[in-house]
Amino acid sequence: MARQPVPARRANAERSIAAILEAGTRLLSADPGASVADIAREAGVGRVTLYGHFPSREALVDAVLDHAVRMADGVLEDDRIDTAPPPEAMEGLLRSSWEVLDRHRRLFLAADRALPTERIRERHERPLRRVERLIARGREAGDFRTDLPSQWLVTAFFAILHSAAQELDAGRLAPDEVEKVLVTTMLSLLRPPVAKRA
Amino acid sequence: MARQPVPARRANAERSIAAILEAGTRLLSADPGASVADIAREAGVGRVTLYGHFPSREALVDAVLDHAVRMADGVLEDDRIDTAPPPEAMEGLLRSSWEVLDRHRRLFLAADRALPTERIRERHERPLRRVERLIARGREAGDFRTDLPSQWLVTAFFAILHSAAQELDAGRLAPDEVEKVLVTTMLSLLRPPVAKRA
Repeated sequence: MARQPVPARRANAERSIAAILEAGTRLLSADPGASVADIAREAGVGRVTLYGHFPSREALVDAVLDHAVRMADGVLEDDRIDTAPPPEAMEGLLRSSWEVLDRHRRLFLAADRALPTERIRERHERPLRRVERLIARGREAGDFRTDLPSQWLVTAFFAILHSAAQELDAGRLAPDEVEKVLVTTMLSLLRPPVAKRA
Repeated sequence: MARQPVPARRANAERSIAAILEAGTRLLSADPGASVADIAREAGVGRVTLYGHFPSREALVDAVLDHAVRMADGVLEDDRIDTAPPPEAMEGLLRSSWEVLDRHRRLFLAADRALPTERIRERHERPLRRVERLIARGREAGDFRTDLPSQWLVTAFFAILHSAAQELDAGRLAPDEVEKVLVTTMLSLLRPPVAKRA
């Protein structure tokens, strides 16, 4: 058939790109310094093919990060962040983000070495907005404090989350206490200064 | 006099070292990438003299960091960390450490690029122990929570402190709100989960 070659080539390209992004996620999560050659080998494609899609290591790391964030976003879509009572929604967000961020922590480490800070911030933006929205909703509902800037509460959220990941990594927090520590810490931080009773 | 040369040479060496450490603190705080040549020029010593005392950039950055931490420690010695009621002591520690850490923040940035992580951790140890001791005292007194590991509370303290410094740097926290935000955040984090009344 006359029209076969173009779609076939396109399908091949799509398969290669998917394989490269999956291999990149796997390898860069395990070792932030993984090389382009390692990723091509793991994906089962030639280096020329890889460079055809991603002209530099920076472009590749950027695409892998985007891919990983989209996957993570898919997981986060499922929860009740926008409907559950804010403290419960925060607990749910932490428990789900924790797993996702733990999985992709090393990926952000790789990105940290390969990409400019502003690019990393852009990639972080979707989860950032989700956290912002939840904190705003909790403040309106009177469940979260309003005596500190909401931007600061978002920053503290990510600082606490990344610290917990590092502490786990260093063996100073046990895997089975991380979630409880995270949830307890963040809810203490967000609670209004005067105890609210229903 | 026969014994003059040796003490004179020693006094000269001491003066050079002091000048190098002060110049290093000043330059590396302003620009974490400041070169050894820049620091020698600022200190008014030759590069040969500088390398005679500090054989590598790493050795120099390490000595500058040690010098800065000792200076900071001198400031911290003055407060009532070990005697005031723990929440007040925490507020005092934050207000004093905040200033010191803000001054030396960029120095740690320089160190971060030039020294291995374990070396930086060693240099951090004195302030770390001070925070640990205060948190332990607050837990014993019933002023601070005991439902989270004390090691985690120490980690959270530094994570919050460094985040506030970064937020100030990025223009997302105003200089006049940093202390209030830090104190409020840390005391909320440390307060026992059930409200205590005297």
